[in-house]
Amino acid sequence: MKENNNKIRIALDAMGGNFAPVNEIEGAILAYKEKSDILDITLVGDGKLIEKHLKNYGFSNNFNILNAEDIVTMEDSPSDSYKNKPKSSMRIGLELQSKGESDAFVSTGNTGAVLANSTLSLGKIEGISRPTIGSPMPSLKGGFSMLFDVGASVDCKSRHLLEFAVMGSVYMNYIGNIPNPRVGLLNIGEEENKGNEITIKAYDILKNSKINFIGNVEGDDILSGKVDVTVCDGYTGNIILKFAESVIEILKYKFKEYANRNFKNKIWMGMFRNTLKKILKEFDYQNYGGVPLLGVNGVAIIGHGKSTSVAIKNMIFRAVEMVKKNVNEKIRIEINSYLNNNNK
Amino acid sequence: MKENNNKIRIALDAMGGNFAPVNEIEGAILAYKEKSDILDITLVGDGKLIEKHLKNYGFSNNFNILNAEDIVTMEDSPSDSYKNKPKSSMRIGLELQSKGESDAFVSTGNTGAVLANSTLSLGKIEGISRPTIGSPMPSLKGGFSMLFDVGASVDCKSRHLLEFAVMGSVYMNYIGNIPNPRVGLLNIGEEENKGNEITIKAYDILKNSKINFIGNVEGDDILSGKVDVTVCDGYTGNIILKFAESVIEILKYKFKEYANRNFKNKIWMGMFRNTLKKILKEFDYQNYGGVPLLGVNGVAIIGHGKSTSVAIKNMIFRAVEMVKKNVNEKIRIEINSYLNNNNK
Repeated sequence: MKENNNKIRIALDAMGGNFAPVNEIEGAILAYKEKSDILDITLVGDGKLIEKHLKNYGFSNNFNILNAEDIVTMEDSPSDSYKNKPKSSMRIGLELQSKGESDAFVSTGNTGAVLANSTLSLGKIEGISRPTIGSPMPSLKGGFSMLFDVGASVDCKSRHLLEFAVMGSVYMNYIGNIPNPRVGLLNIGEEENKGNEITIKAYDILKNSKINFIGNVEGDDILSGKVDVTVCDGYTGNIILKFAESVIEILKYKFKEYANRNFKNKIWMGMFRNTLKKILKEFDYQNYGGVPLLGVNGVAIIGHGKSTSVAIKNMIFRAVEMVKKNVNEKIRIEINSYLNNNNK
Repeated sequence: MKENNNKIRIALDAMGGNFAPVNEIEGAILAYKEKSDILDITLVGDGKLIEKHLKNYGFSNNFNILNAEDIVTMEDSPSDSYKNKPKSSMRIGLELQSKGESDAFVSTGNTGAVLANSTLSLGKIEGISRPTIGSPMPSLKGGFSMLFDVGASVDCKSRHLLEFAVMGSVYMNYIGNIPNPRVGLLNIGEEENKGNEITIKAYDILKNSKINFIGNVEGDDILSGKVDVTVCDGYTGNIILKFAESVIEILKYKFKEYANRNFKNKIWMGMFRNTLKKILKEFDYQNYGGVPLLGVNGVAIIGHGKSTSVAIKNMIFRAVEMVKKNVNEKIRIEINSYLNNNNK
């Protein structure tokens, strides 16, 4: 495959997810089929295995392959994975970017390890002290809002919540296509003086920032469509995210349990099954196509370990968008303009 | 009404909820009808209004009335309500207990104000520094677990999480009738070293306590049936609680929206409406009958402002149970045995 400077160079961790490398390779092929004119994809991982699969699919000449001997597993300690596995597909894929030979990295592997390896390989955007991972949340009014942080930064100070607000705001503006996104601070009451030590201080910082800060929002506002970006510490965000995912699973279980109670229920639920599926699917934000890791000096898109090939395709397209729209540069300008303003 | 020392003396805030005093008085009558032999209920509030209502219902001679000129509203600042409204039905109802003339207080008024007034009127149980409010959470395996704290104590230290674990454990043992309840620490990973500063320290304290501590639990474990008591700081718990409440509301809205899309959907949803209601009702923990405020040196049961008369009846019965089973004395013994063990 020839080099082409107009193309977006994506390094895909072919060994990341639960179904690697099959879903990764299929995802790459799907993306290539749709946008071959702009994509230059490098599959990083077990070279022989990747080659064999590509041959089977008849796509041997459409991708670069970069061999990586090791794999970061879901059991590996995120913080140790960088040091302990220098030849992992994750680290090698990211180092391609730090060497300037790639524009973005995509992985469905161990989320914490992607965070750690990205931060160490790429460094942080000037002005950002804490990278953040966001998650889409379905909105009552259709579409999605984003929740930052969902686990990248567990112990937060107020200053970090400002960073999340800036990064989330830029992301929703350029990737979510929402001009002047509404940012809410997750809290236990709407009044300015409500909350814990960190949120009370953060309110004051956000109020005086250039962000479109709509004030405190409560737990029941997250899905309400009231905000485009909800900001909280990574401990709280992670718990909300996992809780939200479990609610839909439990509802499905309850519907099934109800159906199995007696024959009449079974007939009823059978008749209604497809309708129910359609409605619950509107809540299914698993296929959003990966979540961005923001604040690192490069592009890294993280996907669920169970990502389908379609989800992986969408992650690749998300990475392309992040590069094309130069989201990181916009974050750098925003956070530094705020810092400069504040230093006056 | 004659005094009787074998009866449980309940002070009911007749002015608390959104439908006060109607639902309160109806709830008191429902409770009285079922358990007149053990109940001695005092209705606290606008004496003339209460008297009029009781007369209408034909129950003039079955309740005590204690006049209170003022009402704590939902808009009142919880922390100021005690000082600013010394003649509120809330404070007067609670002071009946601090004077030894009542055994328990029940209110559907401003939750924060019940917390503040109870703590100031009744004091705290020896060994407890932070009272807590718990909320039932539906469990996948049927029944409920309890989440502590859902907003009484916003800035928590590890030591406070131990207190919540002890109080929650005693509550689930004696009120939930679960021997040796399983206590989980809400966290962002199962491993001992996961979490923020507070939970990492709390893990260590809980591990060395006499509590049946099953370790860290994640957001998706809350509803899973894995735990009987989930412990977290009041900021996180409050957000989870409000988020959970909103999910069911949003689902109802989505079902309705789907029905309104076209005539076929409307027919479908119409046929399925009752079944759906039955299933969602299993998730409806609003009618659990009030949540306990634990850690104060007395009994206070807090209900939702929208409580129905049946919910208020259940709150009165919950108060009776708390008194009969002497839950506070058990909390005192547990927390102090732990403190003594630790001082060795």
